[in-house]
Amino acid sequence: MTEISTTILDTLATQAIELPSWAFGNAGTRFKVFSSPGTPRTVREKLADAAQVNRLTGLAPTVALHIPWDLVDDYAELASYAGDLGVGLGTINSNTFQDDEYKLGSLTHTDPRIRQKAIDHHFACIDVMDATGSQDLKIWLPDGTNYPGQGDIRGRQDRLADSLSKIYARLSGEQRLVLEYKIFEPHFYTMDVPDWGTSYAHVTALGERAFVCLDTGHHAPSTNIEFIVAQLLRLGRLGSFDFNSRFYADDDLIVGAADPFQLFRILFEVVRGGGLDDGSPVRFMLDQCHNIEDKIPGQIRSVLNVQEMTARALLVDREALTAAQDAGDVLGANAILMDAFYTDVRPALAQWRESRGLPTDPLAAYADSGYGKQIADERVGGTQAGWGA
Amino acid sequence: MTEISTTILDTLATQAIELPSWAFGNAGTRFKVFSSPGTPRTVREKLADAAQVNRLTGLAPTVALHIPWDLVDDYAELASYAGDLGVGLGTINSNTFQDDEYKLGSLTHTDPRIRQKAIDHHFACIDVMDATGSQDLKIWLPDGTNYPGQGDIRGRQDRLADSLSKIYARLSGEQRLVLEYKIFEPHFYTMDVPDWGTSYAHVTALGERAFVCLDTGHHAPSTNIEFIVAQLLRLGRLGSFDFNSRFYADDDLIVGAADPFQLFRILFEVVRGGGLDDGSPVRFMLDQCHNIEDKIPGQIRSVLNVQEMTARALLVDREALTAAQDAGDVLGANAILMDAFYTDVRPALAQWRESRGLPTDPLAAYADSGYGKQIADERVGGTQAGWGA
Amino acid sequence: MTEISTTILDTLATQAIELPSWAFGNAGTRFKVFSSPGTPRTVREKLADAAQVNRLTGLAPTVALHIPWDLVDDYAELASYAGDLGVGLGTINSNTFQDDEYKLGSLTHTDPRIRQKAIDHHFACIDVMDATGSQDLKIWLPDGTNYPGQGDIRGRQDRLADSLSKIYARLSGEQRLVLEYKIFEPHFYTMDVPDWGTSYAHVTALGERAFVCLDTGHHAPSTNIEFIVAQLLRLGRLGSFDFNSRFYADDDLIVGAADPFQLFRILFEVVRGGGLDDGSPVRFMLDQCHNIEDKIPGQIRSVLNVQEMTARALLVDREALTAAQDAGDVLGANAILMDAFYTDVRPALAQWRESRGLPTDPLAAYADSGYGKQIADERVGGTQAGWGA
Amino acid sequence: MTEISTTILDTLATQAIELPSWAFGNAGTRFKVFSSPGTPRTVREKLADAAQVNRLTGLAPTVALHIPWDLVDDYAELASYAGDLGVGLGTINSNTFQDDEYKLGSLTHTDPRIRQKAIDHHFACIDVMDATGSQDLKIWLPDGTNYPGQGDIRGRQDRLADSLSKIYARLSGEQRLVLEYKIFEPHFYTMDVPDWGTSYAHVTALGERAFVCLDTGHHAPSTNIEFIVAQLLRLGRLGSFDFNSRFYADDDLIVGAADPFQLFRILFEVVRGGGLDDGSPVRFMLDQCHNIEDKIPGQIRSVLNVQEMTARALLVDREALTAAQDAGDVLGANAILMDAFYTDVRPALAQWRESRGLPTDPLAAYADSGYGKQIADERVGGTQAGWGA
Repeated sequence: MTEISTTILDTLATQAIELPSWAFGNAGTRFKVFSSPGTPRTVREKLADAAQVNRLTGLAPTVALHIPWDLVDDYAELASYAGDLGVGLGTINSNTFQDDEYKLGSLTHTDPRIRQKAIDHHFACIDVMDATGSQDLKIWLPDGTNYPGQGDIRGRQDRLADSLSKIYARLSGEQRLVLEYKIFEPHFYTMDVPDWGTSYAHVTALGERAFVCLDTGHHAPSTNIEFIVAQLLRLGRLGSFDFNSRFYADDDLIVGAADPFQLFRILFEVVRGGGLDDGSPVRFMLDQCHNIEDKIPGQIRSVLNVQEMTARALLVDREALTAAQDAGDVLGANAILMDAFYTDVRPALAQWRESRGLPTDPLAAYADSGYGKQIADERVGGTQAGWGA
Repeated sequence: MTEISTTILDTLATQAIELPSWAFGNAGTRFKVFSSPGTPRTVREKLADAAQVNRLTGLAPTVALHIPWDLVDDYAELASYAGDLGVGLGTINSNTFQDDEYKLGSLTHTDPRIRQKAIDHHFACIDVMDATGSQDLKIWLPDGTNYPGQGDIRGRQDRLADSLSKIYARLSGEQRLVLEYKIFEPHFYTMDVPDWGTSYAHVTALGERAFVCLDTGHHAPSTNIEFIVAQLLRLGRLGSFDFNSRFYADDDLIVGAADPFQLFRILFEVVRGGGLDDGSPVRFMLDQCHNIEDKIPGQIRSVLNVQEMTARALLVDREALTAAQDAGDVLGANAILMDAFYTDVRPALAQWRESRGLPTDPLAAYADSGYGKQIADERVGGTQAGWGA
Repeated sequence: MTEISTTILDTLATQAIELPSWAFGNAGTRFKVFSSPGTPRTVREKLADAAQVNRLTGLAPTVALHIPWDLVDDYAELASYAGDLGVGLGTINSNTFQDDEYKLGSLTHTDPRIRQKAIDHHFACIDVMDATGSQDLKIWLPDGTNYPGQGDIRGRQDRLADSLSKIYARLSGEQRLVLEYKIFEPHFYTMDVPDWGTSYAHVTALGERAFVCLDTGHHAPSTNIEFIVAQLLRLGRLGSFDFNSRFYADDDLIVGAADPFQLFRILFEVVRGGGLDDGSPVRFMLDQCHNIEDKIPGQIRSVLNVQEMTARALLVDREALTAAQDAGDVLGANAILMDAFYTDVRPALAQWRESRGLPTDPLAAYADSGYGKQIADERVGGTQAGWGA
Repeated sequence: MTEISTTILDTLATQAIELPSWAFGNAGTRFKVFSSPGTPRTVREKLADAAQVNRLTGLAPTVALHIPWDLVDDYAELASYAGDLGVGLGTINSNTFQDDEYKLGSLTHTDPRIRQKAIDHHFACIDVMDATGSQDLKIWLPDGTNYPGQGDIRGRQDRLADSLSKIYARLSGEQRLVLEYKIFEPHFYTMDVPDWGTSYAHVTALGERAFVCLDTGHHAPSTNIEFIVAQLLRLGRLGSFDFNSRFYADDDLIVGAADPFQLFRILFEVVRGGGLDDGSPVRFMLDQCHNIEDKIPGQIRSVLNVQEMTARALLVDREALTAAQDAGDVLGANAILMDAFYTDVRPALAQWRESRGLPTDPLAAYADSGYGKQIADERVGGTQAGWGA
């Protein structure tokens, strides 16, 4: 086994992967949402579950909230509650896909009243940010159309630009606007922010505190995602990741589950582009659906996958790689990259966890903890959280 | 305008496109199911809506049922009710994707008890068929896995074959088993019947009354669907179509909306392969989701699209086409096909409708009928039908 | 048949579709390049063939050149020769994919000497532009890598930006730099300009006379191309089209052959975004491969397809469309678009051609002209033009 | 590091990966074929290069020939020459894509004379098999069409079935017919054998010695290849693999280079389905293009990749896996699979090589051998082998 240097371990110690509160609620497909015992009914229960992931891995110090799913009266109190659990409140995510009036659009709607309603929703999200101290307002815009002719593609862009500028103007201090893109779903003909180019064009028009969010599941088949990572880092506009994995569409599987080598290449470009450096604007976050598997272990598995792959990315001998690249040694350069990928970093990371008072095997520790049984027993009655609540 | 011959019009007169009862209920994505006024609460209301489509187009004489969504106590009475509305009961569709016990499989489950439960569900569907006189049991198997290793791909096939053989053995008389395939969703790593080859291998193992169902939205990107149509017709195993259209995944848009030329090519292969001939085993059916558009006009638009495209397919000068093909005249052969596609058949079909006592413009006639307002006013209270009911 | 208004016909009269000189040479796949009798051996013969297309359609007044394939000593003389044939010299295309030294990159190469060689090639292309009066330097950059690690994605971007800035600085007057993007091929892991976002980021960094070229075959499966058209028009950076069509990858089939409805939607966005207006920066061009079909008729078919689809796009009742869109009438808005698409514009265009002294049926006129036989008889010996010459 | 058991090492010792003679010739894209010093000019030189791969890895005891590229007068002599180099002659591959008469089809052509010519070519290939003792006739059929209407899809299938039956009838003894499928290229609308279902339908119609060849690069995007592997093994019709890897289309990159985890899953299904057992009908072969990288090291890298991944597949604790699958433990079952994948098998395989008298690092050994320089010096003049020769 290749030794993992202290420098690498120190870098890994600074890595933080934000968990989405909704990962602990039920998720599913249009065909069925399966429920499971112990699923949280409240934001506090979601935070409690997220705190388990952080307690066992040391990797997930903050939790993203989704408004209105995670609306509470007193965010100071919620932040304090979270703090007691050892986690903080992170990114605030807006929701413009579940109000009946948004059926044909929100920030892009032809009706100025509905557009303003959607803008106001983002203002309310910024109010939450002010209360929680969250830095990022993340906008995943579900707007789009299903049929050619249904909407005016160009007019929708113009209205989107106008709506975004009003939201951006409301931000203050260090607050940032992060605009996610997605090729399709929930709409099937056009999405109003379908690709990184569109998100990039909008955020550069907004200003310096606007960034692109890259969800690894939101691309056309065969898109080279690490290229986009490298390009956005180069342009200074990569704000955050939504990590997950996919075989077909936006499958929202556990990050690294479908194509671990792709995750490695992505993280290598993050390292290469300074995304792990001090002061980097890049934030890491999960955005997944545990449709059939247990949710808390699913999140543990996910943050470990990101950490292990980051370790492999950091293992790449970049000096040797550059030399091989400059020499035009195609196979040699590739071999240097692959050598890091094929290195089994798990034993070294287990030792590192032990040295930091964390369980060497977080999944086994979770299974042994009895937490799963405990919440299944305690959380009886009420309405389990899901995408609708 | 190219004249449409009497022969073509006579062929069109025999075309029947089955409507799915669930098309009239609410549908949506995992993000949101939008409801709309007038949505049926009962099977009878679904049948009433379907009957409107048939009344205005003359194209949709039967309605497919979905069990258990359309479970009633007395199917003879339901059939009689439908008959009074001018429609019949058609294909019976089973459902193995909404019971909690099917989370990890139904006909393929490792647990023999759950497999038997799923088999018993199909026996119950056959009982319905016996009561309604339906010919086809259509099985769309949602079984699959989300993660590599989760299931034993091979073992699942063996169990599937066993389960299907038990169901097939229960059929009697002219009853048929039609096995649909789908590349992904609701599962994201494997589906147990992902492609036509798998469906074909299973139905040939079952016997002569087992056929493949081709859903036009269930393929990998860039799959040549008309090739599969031609091949299955050649092999004598094309049992039915589920028509819809797509830009990305299984979008379930109105048939012909996304790629009208593809629909034309598909229907041309149907014609070429004898799929419209007397005694053809091929059945036509819609399977779509009207997430945001009005449902009854959506179904009217759909059957008209199929009819118009069938007319264009029938217009192809096949003698000239064969001559050009045999002469190796690439551009000439293509031009003969395109000439039919670019012909505007709508005026001729309007005349034909008029000659048969149907409205020349079915969509305008529906708008004028007041039916939409009537059901919106009448259908107040109760639970609107959807995929869950 | 819907009447085509004089306004529409006048707009069509201004449409010009540039032909690529290389369309008249042999093309093929990596497996085989089939030759055919009459294929040009020289630039002059290519121009003569292109002039036939223009003579019969009135749509193709200019011919794009590819350097070094179309290198001649005296471009003034060549322009004069072309002028005598009734055509002009158009866009100059550079070539950085056939020199052995470009195996691992040209404008992005790690070796400054090879980068300068590639830059110098573009200077030579600008010299040709100065001699011919061509406005556009079109750069399709084939640079990329085949294996992860082979190249430094980020470093290649930086070198590309530097190389492009040197080329751009050499342009003068009204000359423009148009940067094409392509997702893959000839490289299979990364391309250095894989998507419109990358091209857009580079051209905005260069200056106001730098634009994006959109080749309709250069996208990932299921990419919504008309969205990109609308977006680039909105951003003022759509410089030109390379038209062709595809079922799978960069198939380079006849434009409109694979998905005529997509071509319609693209041209509708061109119309919507002012791309046909006076002073529009958008240029139309073909870029196809006639691997198995006759080349001159293939080009005639292509320009007719673009014209017919432009006519359909212009037929859209935009006032009614906007009203339906604003009213949220999904099916109504779609129907307005489809009505134009399904209108058979061919008879009106035939009349229009007649009124302008052009043959009503250009393909029949070509067949009758005997030109094909003539060049087959005359062009004996020499080396047929292809991608290598 | 997980120990690799003696049982596993013994299984690995039986693995043989056939090399294609054409891998040592030049390959490229339609844009450019780059040449390199030392490229073979003759079949003997190809065999010499292939023998280097086997000498250093012990994995590649046979070489596939391509007719007519590898036509010689005396195959007994060629076999003897190969034997002296330590390798044998393997699969015979036919070629129906480079004769001008096959432009519109070979085994499917409308002209019976051209069909017979293509059939006769396969008879000639069988004659070679008789001379060399090769077991497999592999048919990759490039036939297809570029434009809708160009050919009669159904008629082409019927003619194909007829042609194949004539070829099959000519086989004798243990000889097998292996039919490869491919979704697209060199044709872009239809391929006559586009998918495994089509190949399967044809080979079952032929007889027991007809099998399917699965080329890992010949599928639509997002196709689950290991499912097809499992299915074909279950149906008893998986004859052979053509290994390579891809990001986009049929990129023909080094096997395992683009998606190592996919290769692992494929090989796991091979193991699971008995494909490595004694008497298995499954043959392993490479089919790649080394467009820019060195060819001999490229082949060494490839066979090592297959071996390493086979070792990982053999490491899967199948008993534990089955238990987890039966228990419905989604994450647990997945973890068992991933544990094998993430195990670094390279040190154990290096030891194993050492124990068998092979170099521990075959690539370093090749670099040290001087063979590359030697052939570059010796092979001067003549015509380098490529796809055309």
